[in-house]
Amino acid sequence: MSTKKTSLKDIAVKAGVSTALVSYVLNGKEKESRVGQEIAQKIRQIAADLNYQPNHLAKSLRSGKTHTIGLIIADISNPFFANIARVVEDEAKRNGYTVIIGSSDENADKSRDLLDVLINRQVDGFIIVSAEDTEEQIQYLTDRHIPFVLLDRYFPDMQTDFVSTDHYQASYDAGSHLIRSGYQHIGMIAYDSQMFHMRERIRGYSDALNDHNRTVQKSWLQEVRMSAIEAGVQAAIDQMLSGKQPVDAILFATYSLAINGLKYINTLRLQVPTDLAIVSFGQAEVFELYHCPITYLKQPIVLLGKKAVEVLVKKLRHESTEPSQVLMKAELVERASSKVKSVVLI
Amino acid sequence: MSTKKTSLKDIAVKAGVSTALVSYVLNGKEKESRVGQEIAQKIRQIAADLNYQPNHLAKSLRSGKTHTIGLIIADISNPFFANIARVVEDEAKRNGYTVIIGSSDENADKSRDLLDVLINRQVDGFIIVSAEDTEEQIQYLTDRHIPFVLLDRYFPDMQTDFVSTDHYQASYDAGSHLIRSGYQHIGMIAYDSQMFHMRERIRGYSDALNDHNRTVQKSWLQEVRMSAIEAGVQAAIDQMLSGKQPVDAILFATYSLAINGLKYINTLRLQVPTDLAIVSFGQAEVFELYHCPITYLKQPIVLLGKKAVEVLVKKLRHESTEPSQVLMKAELVERASSKVKSVVLI
Repeated sequence: MSTKKTSLKDIAVKAGVSTALVSYVLNGKEKESRVGQEIAQKIRQIAADLNYQPNHLAKSLRSGKTHTIGLIIADISNPFFANIARVVEDEAKRNGYTVIIGSSDENADKSRDLLDVLINRQVDGFIIVSAEDTEEQIQYLTDRHIPFVLLDRYFPDMQTDFVSTDHYQASYDAGSHLIRSGYQHIGMIAYDSQMFHMRERIRGYSDALNDHNRTVQKSWLQEVRMSAIEAGVQAAIDQMLSGKQPVDAILFATYSLAINGLKYINTLRLQVPTDLAIVSFGQAEVFELYHCPITYLKQPIVLLGKKAVEVLVKKLRHESTEPSQVLMKAELVERASSKVKSVVLI
Repeated sequence: MSTKKTSLKDIAVKAGVSTALVSYVLNGKEKESRVGQEIAQKIRQIAADLNYQPNHLAKSLRSGKTHTIGLIIADISNPFFANIARVVEDEAKRNGYTVIIGSSDENADKSRDLLDVLINRQVDGFIIVSAEDTEEQIQYLTDRHIPFVLLDRYFPDMQTDFVSTDHYQASYDAGSHLIRSGYQHIGMIAYDSQMFHMRERIRGYSDALNDHNRTVQKSWLQEVRMSAIEAGVQAAIDQMLSGKQPVDAILFATYSLAINGLKYINTLRLQVPTDLAIVSFGQAEVFELYHCPITYLKQPIVLLGKKAVEVLVKKLRHESTEPSQVLMKAELVERASSKVKSVVLI
């Protein structure tokens, strides 16, 4: 591909002048003393005819600035990440940066490949939604002084910039809301993951129940493997409903868990919220359009995306050096799926 | 960022040898005559300690191969594109390519920015879901002999590789299905766009009605501006329902149009399909989980993505030179939203 590019030499040959002169002219360095306007004009015309494009790459290798941001998201097929990518792009564009995106698909190896590719593509910095087991990749960036901001997920033991939802508080709010709404046996379906944001969501749920004098029963907290989500969610719901104290409400830790759960709940012909109340993390059209609109934790996608770009751009412009660690509140959007439980008289 | 990279010079200084010698060693060019194994080992150790990374970029500038594919999609926040991006990534990885993604947000200028950025990032080739008014960008790639494949959208007047759904046939099938199901006044909501795939979807709808001796009434075919989709869809539905011959079925030309339509239909308290039958292009969880599951045209996302990668990789490997133009059939997935109309006795 690069061999097809028009070179200064191509232009020089066609114009019958030296490559140096072409370079002078096209870099706006010609002096009247060196070259007349006529020849300068001829060179520019030939450059245009040959579709000449100055090698920004070589320029950026010298300047070390490409005005490009690498955005690595955990899963492009998850609407939360797709939408936040859209926000990051718009905000970056406003700041004069172009965003190139890679999806790690929650896979550490793929995440490493993408970092390598984008570092070699000379991006100025990164915004990263980290996958599991990528701490050493973050450490690698830190050691190399490559500017980056972690988005929505971060590693509590590492001193890095991050902009994230307060996952603990969001989950705590959801659990408390279900208790206040009169639900007795509140379960949670989460991922079997050591990612900090997932542990925080689980911790928030447990604390909410404990603080309201509920003991989380073993069958109430289910952790599903990401690699077998559909079967995992179905087995989890079966256990939650068949336990000694069947749940009357479920908090889903992610959008994907909720989608799989709602599909299974439909096949079980369970009524929401009469048989089972639902609250989910994340937001998507489907929650609004489900026959019983779903209560969800609305993560501040626009604010998260904008703030992440702001923090990174400040770093890139050396306007800020101290670490910036931002936690944002998720809003509990109450819908019919968790409305106050009507007391059943017997 | 690049300034932070460990250079051959850094290593040379630390090793107390010449930069040239470091280059010889690290490029495996050292001759016993020039340098002993001990010093070679020392240089390699220092390079490792300093986390030295050979400049793949410079290498790729010479080789013209980076094993990177640029994927430009029209809108990352649309699940169809997000899901197809996931397929392209997986398939590219299987072929040893990494994918970097950009979203043009259906904007020609943004599309041009992304092409420039990715060309300067030396991607080997492109897979592109074209935005409107980007013909000259495609011509530019063609003139520069930059390998690319158009995905899901193409320009009929340009001789390019493409892998696309047969938009005309899909729309024709949807219209015929609604007629067979007993609906009398079938409308369509599309985008006010000159993009070929959109014109084809509209043409398929019109031909389906004409071939069944129905005349498309003026109020039945509504074209909405992408920039004002919510208000546009609501106005369109109002007109379709208030006309002399109100519609009893609507075909939505895209997922986003359908989402906006379903929300408005809910607020109007219309029953689907009794008051209004629905068929939509695209696929999403929401169609399955809507209180009345929506009949949709399932585009072959996996086949489209895999074929696009296959065609591009063949080009990159010079295994194929003749143009490859593939049209794939969309599957009409029949759900309750368009079930056979029950005859009402008066």
